[in-house]
Amino acid sequence: MPLEVGVLGYGFMGKAHANAMARLPMFFPDAPAIDRSVLIGRHESALADAADRLGFDATATDWRDVVDDVDVFYNLGPNHVHREPSVAALEVGTPVFCEKPLAPTLEDAEAMAAAAREAGDDVPAGCAFNYRFVPAIQYAKRLLEAGDLGEIHHVRGRYLQDWMVDPEAPWSWRNDAEMAGSGALGDLGAHTIDLLRFLVGEIDRVSGHLTTFVDERPVEGAGTDEIRPVTVDDAYSAQLELENGAMGTIEASRFATGHKNDHTIEIHGSDGSLRFSLERLNELEVLRDGDRGYETILVTDEDDPYIDHWWPPGHVIGWEHLFVHENYEFLCAVADESEYEPNFADGLAAQRILDAIEKSDNRGEWISLES
Amino acid sequence: MPLEVGVLGYGFMGKAHANAMARLPMFFPDAPAIDRSVLIGRHESALADAADRLGFDATATDWRDVVDDVDVFYNLGPNHVHREPSVAALEVGTPVFCEKPLAPTLEDAEAMAAAAREAGDDVPAGCAFNYRFVPAIQYAKRLLEAGDLGEIHHVRGRYLQDWMVDPEAPWSWRNDAEMAGSGALGDLGAHTIDLLRFLVGEIDRVSGHLTTFVDERPVEGAGTDEIRPVTVDDAYSAQLELENGAMGTIEASRFATGHKNDHTIEIHGSDGSLRFSLERLNELEVLRDGDRGYETILVTDEDDPYIDHWWPPGHVIGWEHLFVHENYEFLCAVADESEYEPNFADGLAAQRILDAIEKSDNRGEWISLES
Amino acid sequence: MPLEVGVLGYGFMGKAHANAMARLPMFFPDAPAIDRSVLIGRHESALADAADRLGFDATATDWRDVVDDVDVFYNLGPNHVHREPSVAALEVGTPVFCEKPLAPTLEDAEAMAAAAREAGDDVPAGCAFNYRFVPAIQYAKRLLEAGDLGEIHHVRGRYLQDWMVDPEAPWSWRNDAEMAGSGALGDLGAHTIDLLRFLVGEIDRVSGHLTTFVDERPVEGAGTDEIRPVTVDDAYSAQLELENGAMGTIEASRFATGHKNDHTIEIHGSDGSLRFSLERLNELEVLRDGDRGYETILVTDEDDPYIDHWWPPGHVIGWEHLFVHENYEFLCAVADESEYEPNFADGLAAQRILDAIEKSDNRGEWISLES
Amino acid sequence: MPLEVGVLGYGFMGKAHANAMARLPMFFPDAPAIDRSVLIGRHESALADAADRLGFDATATDWRDVVDDVDVFYNLGPNHVHREPSVAALEVGTPVFCEKPLAPTLEDAEAMAAAAREAGDDVPAGCAFNYRFVPAIQYAKRLLEAGDLGEIHHVRGRYLQDWMVDPEAPWSWRNDAEMAGSGALGDLGAHTIDLLRFLVGEIDRVSGHLTTFVDERPVEGAGTDEIRPVTVDDAYSAQLELENGAMGTIEASRFATGHKNDHTIEIHGSDGSLRFSLERLNELEVLRDGDRGYETILVTDEDDPYIDHWWPPGHVIGWEHLFVHENYEFLCAVADESEYEPNFADGLAAQRILDAIEKSDNRGEWISLES
Repeated sequence: MPLEVGVLGYGFMGKAHANAMARLPMFFPDAPAIDRSVLIGRHESALADAADRLGFDATATDWRDVVDDVDVFYNLGPNHVHREPSVAALEVGTPVFCEKPLAPTLEDAEAMAAAAREAGDDVPAGCAFNYRFVPAIQYAKRLLEAGDLGEIHHVRGRYLQDWMVDPEAPWSWRNDAEMAGSGALGDLGAHTIDLLRFLVGEIDRVSGHLTTFVDERPVEGAGTDEIRPVTVDDAYSAQLELENGAMGTIEASRFATGHKNDHTIEIHGSDGSLRFSLERLNELEVLRDGDRGYETILVTDEDDPYIDHWWPPGHVIGWEHLFVHENYEFLCAVADESEYEPNFADGLAAQRILDAIEKSDNRGEWISLES
Repeated sequence: MPLEVGVLGYGFMGKAHANAMARLPMFFPDAPAIDRSVLIGRHESALADAADRLGFDATATDWRDVVDDVDVFYNLGPNHVHREPSVAALEVGTPVFCEKPLAPTLEDAEAMAAAAREAGDDVPAGCAFNYRFVPAIQYAKRLLEAGDLGEIHHVRGRYLQDWMVDPEAPWSWRNDAEMAGSGALGDLGAHTIDLLRFLVGEIDRVSGHLTTFVDERPVEGAGTDEIRPVTVDDAYSAQLELENGAMGTIEASRFATGHKNDHTIEIHGSDGSLRFSLERLNELEVLRDGDRGYETILVTDEDDPYIDHWWPPGHVIGWEHLFVHENYEFLCAVADESEYEPNFADGLAAQRILDAIEKSDNRGEWISLES
Repeated sequence: MPLEVGVLGYGFMGKAHANAMARLPMFFPDAPAIDRSVLIGRHESALADAADRLGFDATATDWRDVVDDVDVFYNLGPNHVHREPSVAALEVGTPVFCEKPLAPTLEDAEAMAAAAREAGDDVPAGCAFNYRFVPAIQYAKRLLEAGDLGEIHHVRGRYLQDWMVDPEAPWSWRNDAEMAGSGALGDLGAHTIDLLRFLVGEIDRVSGHLTTFVDERPVEGAGTDEIRPVTVDDAYSAQLELENGAMGTIEASRFATGHKNDHTIEIHGSDGSLRFSLERLNELEVLRDGDRGYETILVTDEDDPYIDHWWPPGHVIGWEHLFVHENYEFLCAVADESEYEPNFADGLAAQRILDAIEKSDNRGEWISLES
Repeated sequence: MPLEVGVLGYGFMGKAHANAMARLPMFFPDAPAIDRSVLIGRHESALADAADRLGFDATATDWRDVVDDVDVFYNLGPNHVHREPSVAALEVGTPVFCEKPLAPTLEDAEAMAAAAREAGDDVPAGCAFNYRFVPAIQYAKRLLEAGDLGEIHHVRGRYLQDWMVDPEAPWSWRNDAEMAGSGALGDLGAHTIDLLRFLVGEIDRVSGHLTTFVDERPVEGAGTDEIRPVTVDDAYSAQLELENGAMGTIEASRFATGHKNDHTIEIHGSDGSLRFSLERLNELEVLRDGDRGYETILVTDEDDPYIDHWWPPGHVIGWEHLFVHENYEFLCAVADESEYEPNFADGLAAQRILDAIEKSDNRGEWISLES
């Protein structure tokens, strides 16, 4: 019996996950069989079109009608819609996969993580930190776990985009504190924070800095000259102190002219260093003990993570492939009723750091993360 | 009525094209509907498995039973199997899509191109030069057609792999002159030659150089110590003179240690230059009039070729996406009974150059391509 | 009459400046004539050797005997020796050139800047921020002054070295708070801060973070097993808010495994971006309005800053050439009795920021720079 | 007693070598003492200026008056002036250092090499292949000699410039077959050929291709509209077969838009690969056995070739430093009356290959180099 999957949201993320699900049988034949059963949204006609294009059997306009019926619930809506449906699904024992950041507020994230804890380990509650599933990042994780970089001294992450640098770029829900929680911080920073937690470990203290360069934007649409306020950050930075003694700097921006989706991670340890850039996601730069410079590794060999499912060495994969890996791992966990990571606890941990960064910016001082 | 597609070959290329076909509906909704009807191969049990995994309705062990029944025939077999089934299909008016190089010999290629000519323009006969469908290459084509690089003086192409550098790497049909025609020359050089013809124009004269570094190899398999001769080149180079007065150098190798699938194209004109590398296929380096250095363009913007079908700017695509573009264009041509390029005439043109390069190597002198 | 030059210090910096002076006549024929008159140091025999090798006419072991006699005084000693001789020289109207950071403490820096102010504009007091004199940095300055990058949103600087990552690397004066003031912060961060002030403008607020990874080190030398404490930072980071509204992050480390002298500057404005790296100091990456990616400019054309003095386009210069440009500008100012920048006021401005970063680290809160 | 040095030529090369000589005492204190005694040229007033700026004691307008008087003779004139003065100097036992290519014709080169042979090993006759003295190239040489790259399969070299791409760029002696011998081939190709001989070994057979894109050019100068023919190549390419079984491609151009002085060398062996680029001459990219990608090595460590004479790690050197290394080695050989390489025999060997490439182009066939 295939798993019945219900998906809330049919925008960018809906397309990315539907595609990932559709690709599993050919490339991950041991993945559980699934049915894209129900696509959930508010605007019936757009929803019907999307369901047709994305291969869903049916549609629904209220998630309440769905979360109990399906075997898995994907919550791909805007941040302010993460909590209620996810908690409802978990309360009836339906595994949930939720987009990141887990929630617009720490309170919401705590409620969601609590619901996941109560649902139990056999009800996976995944948080969509998809960059963990880049083969090069998995390769980096192997190196770090093997201790190849020694004691870690420095971490550095930045996520640069430029789609809001034009002051006339239209207002969206991503500019609204109520709906999004934060701006570049939550949208982009959440990815960086999760990768650093995944690769290097927990963060103890943060000092944050948020800036809004353009504080109001026009609403898109014919015949309107409505202007709405931007109530979130356009860019953030933070300094970190990690549990293992490393120090770090992270930042993100929607105003980094010329950068489209440039997420980079750099780590220096006592025995080596590594660098990763999302726009060249097939590559990892690694410097190991005895090396004098970075070795640029094309992570597409047969024994590289996930690569045996795809193409021969040198035949590069793209951004969407991360979603296939992520859906594979999550759906296997659902079928096996086993734990999945990154989960809601990871989502909450990231949220606590996002929240601490905002608090730090407000108060002008370092904030400790309570353990 | 969906187009019934028959496919000969279920190896690497079979998987690449089946995947491309499977992905069309979600991303290219205006592509013609198709059925993956029949998968053709010799080994029944492996074939059945492949058909199941690649989503084919049925299997056949003789292409003769198929070419007349289907609406489109894909010939993805080894080079020495290109001619007979392709010609048979064209003779009954079935459009054919054939892997490159078009044939192991010039004679075969000529017969195939003749069959395509006789079938007429409304029966597309495509040759699988998939690298024409890289967005960055299409972008380069636009620049060249607009004259942005001025008069072209230099072209340079190289295709580097290293999978045979180990003398113990096992013998395969690709090492055999009968089955493959040539080695690196036909397998890799055909791509380079097609890209240069596509981007810059016809080649007038060539001087070629072929080398076989390891002249026999072990046959893989338990309990055997059979050794077979390598009767093709491990690497080739050639100097070119183009119709437009440009000069060029091209080369390919299976012995370029550290390079997996490194196909690069470089062009210098009187007003600018460009560079492309397949291992970074989302990027194009362009120098235009007035620029002092190359601009590294990430060809993933909404108005870049094919990109509106995929993901937002900066969300990179992979090697397999070229096959989706290629299948889209070819299947549209089939549905519209219109011309498709690159076609068998392009395949033959490339073959003539491959043949001239080999002849030049044999004779130790330049060879002119008769017009 | 050639200018009589007295130089305190004959280590790395002594060699760098003596070389620069020696090269002026051949490459900058309009530079004032100078005599390398006196080299000052404490260890007579080493001093005599150095004077011989570096082309000085005489030596002295006490700067007090020199500062009044010479026309120019170069103070290239360790940081804690910057104040007294520099002030003494200025008090007798002798122009001074002092290595960076200007001083180990803010108090010292203020005293030095006051002495320079009192000496007047016709007595140049230069601070050795030599990276202003990289042709690529001067080129960047031109772009920024022309407004080519628009309104600046982001600045980023980092200076990575790894010579102390080994815990057994020997103790030096650079590890001592009394003598050096601070560690990576003052030694490396001072450069970054000066470049950002030069290129983008004043800094309003900082949040700093200093870390010492290894807190004691062996003293080098035969027969000793003395251990001394490290009382300065091994690495620092800081977040910045600039007067013009831009935000920034800067950092430096002596623990960045694999990086030798890697000083990078990145700037994003509303109309463009740029990137510079000291280990590729002949290059500047620039993205201007209308560009889609960074253009890698080799800043070695005839009309690039200072290049007409050197070699034809593409014949790259090295790190030492910056010292030639710096000495040229400084010595011309001395000869002309005109203002020179970067001067002691710039040194003090940088020192205030260094000091604020340390204070911020101590207090765990942002520190404003009083205007 | 310092060596008396006479130098013919005070253009670009005169400046480069005078500078190198001037820098030796400070950085290579064990180099023999020299006097820049006589500068030789035809135009008295320009010559006097140059002698003054470049630090020569005297001038002469006829080399005949000089070659016997000095201890060393530098021939830095145009190619057609290489033979006569060099031979005359050698005949009187004066060591000679001659710019490359050794001569405009094979006949001249043979006469010069014969003169050097007759003068004997204690009279060094150096040919100015300065790129052997790049630290990264010396480092590559060490790797190759240690066998780290295994058996060599591929060599590749190209030297790209663009200073003649404008058809209005003025005519110079470099465009004239009588004076220059050849164009890009001799001027740039000679460097590539020497590096390949130095690093990998002798060349057995060549197939060459020369092109002249613009066949006449204006003569520079007020009030003239004279046009002169270009009788040399603007660009060349060649295919190589090496004695050790490797194959190669080399090329050079003065029409490679956007490239100023871009000389790259690439080598693939059975166990590794390397890449070098002159515009980033402090770096070497190396892939060794067991590596998966190229390691980018900054060749500025203390134990790297020549680096202990200069600056600490990461403080990059420039193009001119190669001349210092080269002059150091040559002048030491003069002082020691010992052999120096690259010598006139190397110059002749390169000349034979240049000549074979031209012959091959003329005849349209491969040419063997007689041993």
